[in-house]
Amino acid sequence: MRNIKLTLSYDGADFSGWQTQPGKRTVQETLETAIARITGEAKPRVNASGRTDSGVHAVGQVVNFFTGTTLAADALMRALNAHLPHDLVVHDAADRPPSFDANRDAIRKLYRYIIHDGPTPNPFLRKYCCWTKRRLDAVAMARAAESLVGRHDFHSFETEWPNRSSSIRTITHLSVNRFGDHVWIDVEADGFLYNMVRAIAGTLMNVGRGYWPVDEVARILAAEDRTRAGPTAPAQGLFLMRVIYAS
Amino acid sequence: MRNIKLTLSYDGADFSGWQTQPGKRTVQETLETAIARITGEAKPRVNASGRTDSGVHAVGQVVNFFTGTTLAADALMRALNAHLPHDLVVHDAADRPPSFDANRDAIRKLYRYIIHDGPTPNPFLRKYCCWTKRRLDAVAMARAAESLVGRHDFHSFETEWPNRSSSIRTITHLSVNRFGDHVWIDVEADGFLYNMVRAIAGTLMNVGRGYWPVDEVARILAAEDRTRAGPTAPAQGLFLMRVIYAS
Repeated sequence: MRNIKLTLSYDGADFSGWQTQPGKRTVQETLETAIARITGEAKPRVNASGRTDSGVHAVGQVVNFFTGTTLAADALMRALNAHLPHDLVVHDAADRPPSFDANRDAIRKLYRYIIHDGPTPNPFLRKYCCWTKRRLDAVAMARAAESLVGRHDFHSFETEWPNRSSSIRTITHLSVNRFGDHVWIDVEADGFLYNMVRAIAGTLMNVGRGYWPVDEVARILAAEDRTRAGPTAPAQGLFLMRVIYAS
Repeated sequence: MRNIKLTLSYDGADFSGWQTQPGKRTVQETLETAIARITGEAKPRVNASGRTDSGVHAVGQVVNFFTGTTLAADALMRALNAHLPHDLVVHDAADRPPSFDANRDAIRKLYRYIIHDGPTPNPFLRKYCCWTKRRLDAVAMARAAESLVGRHDFHSFETEWPNRSSSIRTITHLSVNRFGDHVWIDVEADGFLYNMVRAIAGTLMNVGRGYWPVDEVARILAAEDRTRAGPTAPAQGLFLMRVIYAS
């Protein structure tokens, strides 16, 4: 059997998240159905770098799956794109050694959270960012974010489902940048707890609104208490940008 | 009665076009319903610069309507945005003299048609551009477009509904520009026939694909025959950008 690695983009707006659920349109099921049609194999099973929730987008999600097809990787990609709906696109396909596992071998991931804080919402971006009427202080947000970089227990930024044995993770990069009426929060880490980026975004937005001083974020982190952090920011602002592998 | 001018943006993806139709979600009805709620007036009637078809977007549509409300224009805009769904936004509101008519007084309009010709469709743009797999020759398209500028009978680029007394219009500006994997066709004219921009886009795309030589477009224009021009390009690539008034 061959082990194929795919890199995908999807618009999460019309998907009930990644994982197959009865009666729901999910990315996993949509992709597996297309693979089954092309390979003729009965139950293909794709293994993603991680799940994404309903409404969350991906620019560079990575999956792998095993197949006996003799189609070259490029031809397989073209055939998949011909069968997939237009909100799910394969950007790259490549053969990998049998040992490659898109989930286990991911060493870091980069998520981007996009906030629009212009005076009126942009109708074209309503599913692709979080709109807030109040102008955010992105400089204060960037300073507050510094305390989160490094190896910490992120329990304050975790929704406790599914349970994890440890909430210690390492954030290798965290930046907050303003581009006109948009604020981008980029978070790269060796792993993410459930809703972690959205909880960080909701917390930094409270700083950006002036509700909290810059140093409150360090206190929230130290408290290891989810009730201290800000709300979970809405799904539609979140993008899985890139999954990084060692080789 | 006051005469209010509104400037609107809307994402056309989930609207059945501008004009009120029974059982359909349209921009006109959505806007009139919001105005009725705020002013308490029974049957407000907005008058647009022109209709847009199902799936067509607007960045700067202009309408006017008469009302007895005492709300200042800015407060009226904020109240409307609080009542409107997020795919329809008012960007500007202003009092105008009673004689102002958003349709009749428009001296020019600018439409943009956006084509994406990258190797794979972009899932985030599927409702906001026309995707074509084959790379277009935008330079040839720009040269072909030159023959359409000026005052001409555009019957070859008109879908014959609704009937118009004359298909003579003046294109004051027509440019084709490439930005990475995107080609923008900008058309400014003193008036547009039904599906005119989309017929121009479909025709220029045939030149961009190499199906037709550059000078074919001048021959199509001279033929005054719709069957000679290219297909009507899909609605989702079309944006009403701006409506220009004398004052």
